[in-house]
Amino acid sequence: MSKTNPLAVIGTVAIDEVETPFGKRDRAFGGSASYFSYAASFFTPVSVVAVVGKDFPKDFLSILEGRPIDLSHLEHSDGKTFFWRGRYRYDMNAAETLETQLNVLTEFNPKLNFNSPPDFLFLANIDPVLQEKVLDQAGKPKARFVACDTMNFWIEKKRPELIRVLARVDGIIINENEARQLAGEANLIRAAQKIHSWGPAKVVIKKGEHGVLLFDQGQFFPLPGYPLETVFDPTGAGDSFAGALMGYLAKTGDLSFENLKKAVAYGAVMASFTVEDFSLDRLRRLDFGQIEERLAIFRRLCSF
Amino acid sequence: MSKTNPLAVIGTVAIDEVETPFGKRDRAFGGSASYFSYAASFFTPVSVVAVVGKDFPKDFLSILEGRPIDLSHLEHSDGKTFFWRGRYRYDMNAAETLETQLNVLTEFNPKLNFNSPPDFLFLANIDPVLQEKVLDQAGKPKARFVACDTMNFWIEKKRPELIRVLARVDGIIINENEARQLAGEANLIRAAQKIHSWGPAKVVIKKGEHGVLLFDQGQFFPLPGYPLETVFDPTGAGDSFAGALMGYLAKTGDLSFENLKKAVAYGAVMASFTVEDFSLDRLRRLDFGQIEERLAIFRRLCSF
Repeated sequence: MSKTNPLAVIGTVAIDEVETPFGKRDRAFGGSASYFSYAASFFTPVSVVAVVGKDFPKDFLSILEGRPIDLSHLEHSDGKTFFWRGRYRYDMNAAETLETQLNVLTEFNPKLNFNSPPDFLFLANIDPVLQEKVLDQAGKPKARFVACDTMNFWIEKKRPELIRVLARVDGIIINENEARQLAGEANLIRAAQKIHSWGPAKVVIKKGEHGVLLFDQGQFFPLPGYPLETVFDPTGAGDSFAGALMGYLAKTGDLSFENLKKAVAYGAVMASFTVEDFSLDRLRRLDFGQIEERLAIFRRLCSF
Repeated sequence: MSKTNPLAVIGTVAIDEVETPFGKRDRAFGGSASYFSYAASFFTPVSVVAVVGKDFPKDFLSILEGRPIDLSHLEHSDGKTFFWRGRYRYDMNAAETLETQLNVLTEFNPKLNFNSPPDFLFLANIDPVLQEKVLDQAGKPKARFVACDTMNFWIEKKRPELIRVLARVDGIIINENEARQLAGEANLIRAAQKIHSWGPAKVVIKKGEHGVLLFDQGQFFPLPGYPLETVFDPTGAGDSFAGALMGYLAKTGDLSFENLKKAVAYGAVMASFTVEDFSLDRLRRLDFGQIEERLAIFRRLCSF
């Protein structure tokens, strides 16, 4: 139990049903914390704070157990696991949510009992009220670097709570449209600056196929999308992006702008693998050599 | 009259009325050939093949005359100059066209009488029938490098003519959404490959704030957008991008992939200046040192 916990994530471990132009998967292993932790585990050990129901398949769990992923904070609850059903059509940048069953998530009350609180903490997209509870227990001022994600639903429904979370985090990793919505600014540079003014020193805006925009206290890093001919299933791209980014930061412990740029590039590379297959399937066939190889290709592609 | 003509453009010289969230300009100097030639003139002399009406302001012409821009192929016709009225709202990526008066453009029959045909030729966004006429006179097989632009209107209304043009050009410089529409492919990598299969070896896809994607016979170069806090008026961004790109190619005469990447970067930098003010106003205050300086900043920003 005296594991070091350099990195922890709170988020969802889910069962997904996904349809894309390339096929359909009825019971896919999904959830923000699943993608995040699997991606991060290429760089560093990671703890998952989440909840699953009685129906959660053992073989899904064993996928995480085979990695340096600490599941001792994964709560096993009565009831059914969080379920998401979605579809991607012509435009693979936008998921169409067909059904969301919160199930065990409605009663989720994260209780963290780390021997030593994590240095790096990611609050994946969940109710900002839960994000605050985690911050109270394992987050600021204890953790060294805390980042969060969010989504349009919370921006609309729980804005005051979300703004309180923002005041306590060091970074935010957020989608393009959510950044615009949160800031009330169409221009992403201004949106990043405005979000920064509410708390996070580092603002990372994910733009799907168009890449990433990193803002860090006045400095910008625009990264294009990695050119992919086939995007098979975009589910989990954002969470595995965040997992690789945070995993690399936790591994190196270096929060300089130059290292953050590299972390963003690792995130983009990880996401480019994730979307090449359903669920975690591509990541499960991935080794670190392939990550390094694609990063090198990406760097060469981008140079001029 | 025995000027060398390394670069020529056929397109529009227009009077625009533009409204953006930052202001309104009633009679702005516009048109694809105007933006293109002004941008190209930072790199190389350029000839304009276009038509204006009797109402065309002399002071607009003198703006071009003050540059190494050859206006001897600019036709002065009876009637009114091509007029475009448009608006940009919250989303500065998309112009809303409120009015188009073709005027003298309806009767335009470009007659080219270059002593020596141009080595580099750009067919800006006009009726593909006119683009073909120019190709017959000054284009392939005579010119060394011919590129074209087009728009949704021609893709819908004159697809067979457009496909004929594509078979005769070396490159195409086209907007993201038009690339998708032309190819019938949501994925831009596949769209570029499909468009390439119809003729152009080099496919340049402009993505506004998200940058550019260059495809050149199997090789890709993704360039992010130059981070701009204020986009004052996006009109002419695409044409000045093309002007700088073609101007740099014509100046260097080097069509290698590495040089094309640099040409694309010059194009992006030029466009980033264009949008900082109405009409050609920012380009008129621009010198080559500022272009080089921003290119160096851009390159530094993008490296990781």
